[in-house]
Amino acid sequence: MVTIKDIAERLNIAVSTVSKGLNGAEDISEETRQLVLDTAVEMGYSLKKIKRTATTKVCIFVDSQNMDYENEDQFGYELVNGFKKAAISRSWEVVIEPSQLNFRSLEKYDSYMLKNGYAGAFLLGFTLHDDWVRQLEKTTVPTVLLDNFIADNEKVGYVGTDSREGISQAVKHLVQLGHKRIAFLNGTKNSMVSEERNLAFRQSMEENGLEVDEKLVAYGYFVPDCAKTYVTGFVENGATAIMCASDLIASGVLNELNRLGKRVPEDIAVTGFDDLPIAAQLKPSLTTIRQDRSNLGKSAALMLDGLIRNVSMSKLLLRAKLVVRESTEK
Amino acid sequence: MVTIKDIAERLNIAVSTVSKGLNGAEDISEETRQLVLDTAVEMGYSLKKIKRTATTKVCIFVDSQNMDYENEDQFGYELVNGFKKAAISRSWEVVIEPSQLNFRSLEKYDSYMLKNGYAGAFLLGFTLHDDWVRQLEKTTVPTVLLDNFIADNEKVGYVGTDSREGISQAVKHLVQLGHKRIAFLNGTKNSMVSEERNLAFRQSMEENGLEVDEKLVAYGYFVPDCAKTYVTGFVENGATAIMCASDLIASGVLNELNRLGKRVPEDIAVTGFDDLPIAAQLKPSLTTIRQDRSNLGKSAALMLDGLIRNVSMSKLLLRAKLVVRESTEK
Repeated sequence: MVTIKDIAERLNIAVSTVSKGLNGAEDISEETRQLVLDTAVEMGYSLKKIKRTATTKVCIFVDSQNMDYENEDQFGYELVNGFKKAAISRSWEVVIEPSQLNFRSLEKYDSYMLKNGYAGAFLLGFTLHDDWVRQLEKTTVPTVLLDNFIADNEKVGYVGTDSREGISQAVKHLVQLGHKRIAFLNGTKNSMVSEERNLAFRQSMEENGLEVDEKLVAYGYFVPDCAKTYVTGFVENGATAIMCASDLIASGVLNELNRLGKRVPEDIAVTGFDDLPIAAQLKPSLTTIRQDRSNLGKSAALMLDGLIRNVSMSKLLLRAKLVVRESTEK
Repeated sequence: MVTIKDIAERLNIAVSTVSKGLNGAEDISEETRQLVLDTAVEMGYSLKKIKRTATTKVCIFVDSQNMDYENEDQFGYELVNGFKKAAISRSWEVVIEPSQLNFRSLEKYDSYMLKNGYAGAFLLGFTLHDDWVRQLEKTTVPTVLLDNFIADNEKVGYVGTDSREGISQAVKHLVQLGHKRIAFLNGTKNSMVSEERNLAFRQSMEENGLEVDEKLVAYGYFVPDCAKTYVTGFVENGATAIMCASDLIASGVLNELNRLGKRVPEDIAVTGFDDLPIAAQLKPSLTTIRQDRSNLGKSAALMLDGLIRNVSMSKLLLRAKLVVRESTEK
């Protein structure tokens, strides 16, 4: 079991400072306090021991079918962790609820929240077709969605990464390497991020004076297997680079190019989106657009805090950052 | 001088509750505490009397040439007030600095902030050409800008209203009233919001199956006088509605239409953007897109809080809301 002493040793600071950080004492800096709390969360220090001054209870709902968060390699892991870190300095109690689609068609969103005393929720992995997402148009419960936008309801906000900024960096990078025939393998069609990334790709190509060849653009799915359907066509139509809307799609593209006997990046360059831990492990390692998932989680908490205090916010975007690895440049 | 008793009377609650709210006691609800603090700010209760637990000092810089905030009718008034309200529950000390362009070309942004011990700043009314705005590309000081975006610097964020959502509501409203020849008189060309509103107008027209006639679209300035240059042309080219990028521009358009003997809304409908207090006073009263300036100020504080805690955020957008008055529908 993790003790205050363990935290102090990890941070190389006095036990008394850790204690002050955990107990909300006022004579240490805000930065130190946050660092102590963050480290406590990371090391699994029992949250019950941390002094609470309020009893706001919030919930992270995770659609178990679309979002994994149990281990470090998965997209949701740092999101959940980041949210918890930000929640702790707000003295929130955070409950994580993995949730199934069939359960959500039985119970109304608002009644469920009310019954469980949740002051607000962060929804992960929900799709536009979900019953609960449709109910969000009218909900009175402060709710933050990842990568999904609900029009006209002041109680609902959306957090995500600035696709425009990320895609524009990736296109610029490929253009600087001499690429002109750039393909784009997108995610699922009826998803808000896919639509945004599609627009971002077209705008970035235009800004670089390049034409989009419709034979080099396709909607797939956010899984590696969708590469099988499109990569051969991209290659036959002369693509020298394939941009992908996620690292998982890119991993499928790398496999497919390998099967076709194409070398990456010598014959064809490949880029991903997300910077999951696997991106650096792939052969060749993957150039990708980093989503700071820990900050996304923290920002979701920050937005939820605002919504709970009746500060209506609509969209909160984080910066995207291109991480260059072997799949574009050796 | 405002006393605790005055605040209690205004809110019709006990003096002891007000006292608890001002002193950060834990046995009242968060909502009540915020209400007490908000009311204290509104009534001008001396901020020095409010108990502080920290000494974070932040600053609102206002470009005196582009932004007025001293009285209720002005765009910046509620922005500054909203920021102060949110700052108070964070125990920040807020200093408001009206600032001149020539002063800013003498002193570097970062040195000025450091010298004055500011942990962060909210910048109002700054334009893209400003020396300080250019320095923001490299600043290490957490900074939030209204309606201006700085690429690539994790320490700088932007808050604004979702132009896309607002313009789309206004176009839909005009289309429902039967308008097809819709003109758009935009603000200054080299401004980020003008560019966004231009794009939003074109997208919304397309969504409604209407073509944009380039003779009915123009960049002006964010002042009433720019109407004189464009309104006659719009009328001659058959516009039945004129959308404006601000209420001030719309007030100029109303004057100009009056001079030309056109009735509003019978001959031509007019819409604004902002919902300044004057919008409801104009003859006819102005249909406009509301920016919630108090929430914009609060959100700026919320974002600055995040940036100070190293949660990097890029863009925070608030909802826009169409307010229908006489200038489109009688």
